[in-house]
Amino acid sequence: MRVRYAETDQMGIVYYSNYLVWMEIGRVEFCRSRGVRYREMEAEDRVLLTVAEANCRYHGPARYDEEVVVRTWLEKAHPRMVVFGYQMLSAEGRMLVSGSTKHVFCGPDLKPARLPEKYWKEFGIGIGERQSGA
Amino acid sequence: MRVRYAETDQMGIVYYSNYLVWMEIGRVEFCRSRGVRYREMEAEDRVLLTVAEANCRYHGPARYDEEVVVRTWLEKAHPRMVVFGYQMLSAEGRMLVSGSTKHVFCGPDLKPARLPEKYWKEFGIGIGERQSGA
Amino acid sequence: MRVRYAETDQMGIVYYSNYLVWMEIGRVEFCRSRGVRYREMEAEDRVLLTVAEANCRYHGPARYDEEVVVRTWLEKAHPRMVVFGYQMLSAEGRMLVSGSTKHVFCGPDLKPARLPEKYWKEFGIGIGERQSGA
Amino acid sequence: MRVRYAETDQMGIVYYSNYLVWMEIGRVEFCRSRGVRYREMEAEDRVLLTVAEANCRYHGPARYDEEVVVRTWLEKAHPRMVVFGYQMLSAEGRMLVSGSTKHVFCGPDLKPARLPEKYWKEFGIGIGERQSGA
Repeated sequence: MRVRYAETDQMGIVYYSNYLVWMEIGRVEFCRSRGVRYREMEAEDRVLLTVAEANCRYHGPARYDEEVVVRTWLEKAHPRMVVFGYQMLSAEGRMLVSGSTKHVFCGPDLKPARLPEKYWKEFGIGIGERQSGA
Repeated sequence: MRVRYAETDQMGIVYYSNYLVWMEIGRVEFCRSRGVRYREMEAEDRVLLTVAEANCRYHGPARYDEEVVVRTWLEKAHPRMVVFGYQMLSAEGRMLVSGSTKHVFCGPDLKPARLPEKYWKEFGIGIGERQSGA
Repeated sequence: MRVRYAETDQMGIVYYSNYLVWMEIGRVEFCRSRGVRYREMEAEDRVLLTVAEANCRYHGPARYDEEVVVRTWLEKAHPRMVVFGYQMLSAEGRMLVSGSTKHVFCGPDLKPARLPEKYWKEFGIGIGERQSGA
Repeated sequence: MRVRYAETDQMGIVYYSNYLVWMEIGRVEFCRSRGVRYREMEAEDRVLLTVAEANCRYHGPARYDEEVVVRTWLEKAHPRMVVFGYQMLSAEGRMLVSGSTKHVFCGPDLKPARLPEKYWKEFGIGIGERQSGA
């Protein structure tokens, strides 16, 4: 991913809210790599992944036109919620931002809902969680 | 309206796409001043105002924390489309951007639709336009 | 503050990174109310307020055209850093988002720097902090 | 390029100002393909490419997660200004947006300046233009 001019501010660095946009790109790609297309999950199964929490630590600035790598992993997953972890690094490996986002699965009315079982495997939700009735 | 830090770029001035966001603010306020709440038009009458064209001329830069005035007027209106004109000025009257946006009224399927007659007066659409069957 | 159309996403609610933009608006207004114009601090004293951490908890969604109130306060302040707390509420008092941001004072080279003493009072930095040599 | 969730609005389509961000991506890539790195032009030669005009025609909406192709070409170039043309298409070739942006070369003071001759070839500025002293 390459930093867009629109994403910089007058300090000459990336404005701090844009990293949350990149986190979204990271988790969409993470889901895609597991075989889940978030667009279809939303359109066909009427499951929305709403954000409950977001946390960022800014280690160093990203600059215009720089290539940025977003690493995304699953920190925790239940049929009702999921936590993603992130690291954003420059192409040379300099740490830019680390953070996490916590999400709650919701129906189209934005009320909490259980993730349909067909998606459990992709989110690493196993038998243990099912029994605990999370 | 005051320029947000997020709206600047590394030139130290407002990034050029943000003026289109301000145009939107201008036309929403214009509608509100005429008694039309766009949110209700969209929610209750299922009329969307999609954008067909946008044109901007950049006369001078706006800077962080500057107060900006958005002047909005109706350039043209038919039951199927409307054109808004805009001028954005600094608080001291320096011209920043002028421009226009052309909109097409659509249904929730994003297909063109006629504006319900109850809104005609607010958009200055009169008997002449009705006869011409625009 | 009124929610802009540009700030919504296809869930029909405000996209989650925009709250960080509103936090910025909150802290700029907070500073202004204390007599500090951030623009001047940056331009004249070459002090930048870089972001080191940002945390958000999303309690309920904000929707298009809704009026939002941003409450901002100082949680902690030293000559080298400052923590702001935030609550964002709907006009009716419904909690939308709470959170905090931690900032480090920097010079124009983005290296940490001490806040000039003339700003200490505004940030509530007193004798105690000065002695502790923070 | 893939449409980001952040770029959609509550109509479920891409918010209209984002296409100007994509145009920027298109022209940066266009310059890169010609061997001009805009970042270096700005940092080393102190030449800024300010926007004087932007025009968009919206043919059809882009949706979340869709792949979008940005075609960029040079419509006109002088040592003082350049016009880029754009077409944005879906991966299947459906036209989304067409448009153009006009730019003026400026110095770091944002005053108009001539493009250094070393960049002329990349922008297709030839002997004819040089003689006409544009």
